[in-house]
Amino acid sequence: MEKEKLIDWETAIRRVPADQLDQVLAPVFDRKAQASAKIIAKGLPAGPGAATGRMYLNADRAVQAAEKGEKVLLVRNETSPEDLRGMIAAEGILTAKGGVSSHAALVARQMGKVCVCGAAALQIDYAAKTMTVDGATFKEGDFLSINGTAGEVYAGQIPTAASEIVQVLIEGSLDAGKSQTYQNFKKLMDWCGKATRMSVRTNADTPEQTAHAVAFGANGIGLCRTEHMFFEGNRIDAMREMILADSKEDRQIALAKILPYQREDFIGIFKALAGRPATIRFLDPPLHEFLPHEGVAQSELAKKMGVPVEEIKQRVKELHEFNPMLGFRGCRLGIVYSEISEMQSRAVFEAATEVQKLGVKVSPEIMIPLVGFKKELDLQVDVVHRVAKEVMKEKGAKLNYLVGTMIEVPRGALTADEIAESAEFFSFGTNDLTQTTLGMSRDDSGSFLGPYQELEIVKKNPFATIDQTGVGQLMEVAVAKGQKTRPDIKLGICGEHGGDPDSVKFCHRIGLTYVSCSPFRVPVARLAAAQAMVEEKQAKKNKK
Amino acid sequence: MEKEKLIDWETAIRRVPADQLDQVLAPVFDRKAQASAKIIAKGLPAGPGAATGRMYLNADRAVQAAEKGEKVLLVRNETSPEDLRGMIAAEGILTAKGGVSSHAALVARQMGKVCVCGAAALQIDYAAKTMTVDGATFKEGDFLSINGTAGEVYAGQIPTAASEIVQVLIEGSLDAGKSQTYQNFKKLMDWCGKATRMSVRTNADTPEQTAHAVAFGANGIGLCRTEHMFFEGNRIDAMREMILADSKEDRQIALAKILPYQREDFIGIFKALAGRPATIRFLDPPLHEFLPHEGVAQSELAKKMGVPVEEIKQRVKELHEFNPMLGFRGCRLGIVYSEISEMQSRAVFEAATEVQKLGVKVSPEIMIPLVGFKKELDLQVDVVHRVAKEVMKEKGAKLNYLVGTMIEVPRGALTADEIAESAEFFSFGTNDLTQTTLGMSRDDSGSFLGPYQELEIVKKNPFATIDQTGVGQLMEVAVAKGQKTRPDIKLGICGEHGGDPDSVKFCHRIGLTYVSCSPFRVPVARLAAAQAMVEEKQAKKNKK
Repeated sequence: MEKEKLIDWETAIRRVPADQLDQVLAPVFDRKAQASAKIIAKGLPAGPGAATGRMYLNADRAVQAAEKGEKVLLVRNETSPEDLRGMIAAEGILTAKGGVSSHAALVARQMGKVCVCGAAALQIDYAAKTMTVDGATFKEGDFLSINGTAGEVYAGQIPTAASEIVQVLIEGSLDAGKSQTYQNFKKLMDWCGKATRMSVRTNADTPEQTAHAVAFGANGIGLCRTEHMFFEGNRIDAMREMILADSKEDRQIALAKILPYQREDFIGIFKALAGRPATIRFLDPPLHEFLPHEGVAQSELAKKMGVPVEEIKQRVKELHEFNPMLGFRGCRLGIVYSEISEMQSRAVFEAATEVQKLGVKVSPEIMIPLVGFKKELDLQVDVVHRVAKEVMKEKGAKLNYLVGTMIEVPRGALTADEIAESAEFFSFGTNDLTQTTLGMSRDDSGSFLGPYQELEIVKKNPFATIDQTGVGQLMEVAVAKGQKTRPDIKLGICGEHGGDPDSVKFCHRIGLTYVSCSPFRVPVARLAAAQAMVEEKQAKKNKK
Repeated sequence: MEKEKLIDWETAIRRVPADQLDQVLAPVFDRKAQASAKIIAKGLPAGPGAATGRMYLNADRAVQAAEKGEKVLLVRNETSPEDLRGMIAAEGILTAKGGVSSHAALVARQMGKVCVCGAAALQIDYAAKTMTVDGATFKEGDFLSINGTAGEVYAGQIPTAASEIVQVLIEGSLDAGKSQTYQNFKKLMDWCGKATRMSVRTNADTPEQTAHAVAFGANGIGLCRTEHMFFEGNRIDAMREMILADSKEDRQIALAKILPYQREDFIGIFKALAGRPATIRFLDPPLHEFLPHEGVAQSELAKKMGVPVEEIKQRVKELHEFNPMLGFRGCRLGIVYSEISEMQSRAVFEAATEVQKLGVKVSPEIMIPLVGFKKELDLQVDVVHRVAKEVMKEKGAKLNYLVGTMIEVPRGALTADEIAESAEFFSFGTNDLTQTTLGMSRDDSGSFLGPYQELEIVKKNPFATIDQTGVGQLMEVAVAKGQKTRPDIKLGICGEHGGDPDSVKFCHRIGLTYVSCSPFRVPVARLAAAQAMVEEKQAKKNKK
């Protein structure tokens, strides 16, 4: 319509439903093949697109199969961080339990993986390595296909293809670039670039994710979760050694083994960013997440590490928490074990100097998680500055970097004036801020959020769209208090909400500098940010 | 000194350290016997006073022994709600793990039980039914003695006696009434009565606790936790039946069995209060707390209920939560299963009409827990009013009652203006408000609160003394917003902080109507409340 000059480009921007934009990015089924395929179960659409592959019920076996060149679907009752490698290796993820904010769904969106979750009809038998549904039994290695846009599960193999937009931006196809879909997408994104005040960053933990996000137009990284770097390959061994260590010295020895891996990751990320800023969050999750919880895996680890299995069981027991969300995690780890923050600082700064020497600009922004007290931040900022000085001296380099914090517990927002004395930026961790402000666990809310939406207690899922009255109020308090202390403070958001159009518009209205979201949500966020700007202009016009 | 007219009574009030007042209420060891006794371990002083008895390592066996007339000490690695009956039956509680805010410590203070916790030197062998410490092994049935004021554990039996004050107020001894200690105490409490603006209520779940608190000068109940009523005797069976029920009808059948027990409890409590107000909190904890988690107990329950044990295991699994503090609990239960709130309303109002007919005034104040959204409260208020009308019609009676809410999640405080439209009172649940505002689990904070205090991140344990900057700020927001909507709104506090002198004074300064605390902390709170008033007067004088 814009082409025909019936409407101007600003109106065009407003008319595209931002929430549906990611569907044109997702891979699709071959239409003909799909028509003759049979739906065997329905679940929740948790990661858009189409995927097909051989079913595996275990992350390790999924990885092994993928390494042999198989296309793989990971099928689980539910996923946990231990399944991460399997999720990375898989074309798509299918779970029998969990909602749209379950671990599987969140990680899938983060990775841009196709995902169907909570397909309750699936009966998974881990011991027999089979999945039964509606009388039919599937063995590991059998083909399944899933449509994560519609939440459908199919028997058998249905051919898929990348969307034309992905073919152009990620795969570099020139042919697809000529397609109308891509041309329309490009025009829309160009308009967004003209209109937007807020910048759009991405949540990315690997060079690959970063490159994708940049291709989609991300202006940098808003959240790099460093813990995801500890699960791959042999890294988890060193991490476990660190957790099982009895003394600071032994922890330092283990951490020294992790340092080169982490540094390599940062080098890759800084290169992919080509000068764009990278907000790097220090270790956040509770340590027990890195240890195996099942007997067999514990025995294997004991053998590998040459320690009695009782020692591992004992440490897992010690680290057990009643409410891990509110436990020994975030900056509490870096404060009690400052050697962890030291290692992470060193990895960042060594990587930064190395990339800078190649002539590539680097802008690391180190983010301390879960701060509720200014003193917490001060203690971590001291570590970061000390290590930065050491590395700059060793390498004879000069680095520009920022240190800031996540605002993700209410006390952080309420004392933002104090915290801003030490924080050069705030990033709202709205996942946890929602959990703490509402006293509502994301992972456990499935049992009552359904009735709550039916009874209209909540209008939208507060983990998908920011609860503006409650959580939003705290964000506004933090913005006002932060800016009072430090008028030029950088303000961002890195929760899942950063990819939700309503939430993006709210972030614009309260004056944030940027939003950050999963790579495949970047175009959605760019459109929503542009819409917010256009709406603001329109509202001003209407006032006059 | 006051007697000698060297200082006036207001100065006298200010000079008594409120925090130490509960020590003169606690039972004491016979001095001579104690001198020759041997300390075998040290732990944390978690419930003041002296206790002696035969050691039992299991709640059931402790109860059985107590029923046979034995004086019993319950000794555990740590306690959980399943140990409650054993804790009630015991003279004192001794744990090898946990801090001053562990389950054992909190319940002990609530009950006024002597408690030593975290005596790490104790090695408990549940299977062998022995406790080993420093080379010596004690069997179940052996005598131990503990001093909960000093945190000491002794081998053998040391005779104890109630403090003189308790002898007078609880046991009705006339002799002890002549003692100087009692006379001084009485004079101090009389002065407090003159000075105080805030009233002091108690947290009490039984008629006995209520009577004790009234004897200590409580002006009513600020928190009656109805779930504690479900653990005794056969009640837990009906509760478990309710939880395992598949349909609303089956839940109602099970709830009908609980109704008479709950009504009897309320009758006893209303009688003991003799017209004083009673804030009754509806069911709050997650349902899994009522089911057994160990195989043997699950099998026993299955046999008792005539259901397959798999069904019980399945339900326990379904109810498992990653973060139960933030899960399916509080008003979420009463909203999803409104029949629970119906039964509880009926029990309250039937008891109220019955006691009222005896010529005793009743003032029930029904408190809906964990409210974060006005609509949550509205839905529960509807149930309460409907049942109240029904009961009044059935009994031909007229009842005065209030319905209000706990403010215990940040969103409740932030939207207090909306919530006050439906709430006739607020009671600050500062235990949970602290956990959510700080993003810090009370039960899990042991791993970092130590270093946090050493590093001066927190000056005092925020679960013992209100964090005025963060949690206190939210309380002030809620007071201001609540009063804006409803100028005469009743404002109280029912967290553990209600018995902490610094916190009591803070509550006075922000204008609360009352504080509420454990029965044995009532004199402490009364003194702190009087000190707050005297300090306020003094400050005003100094200004002039």
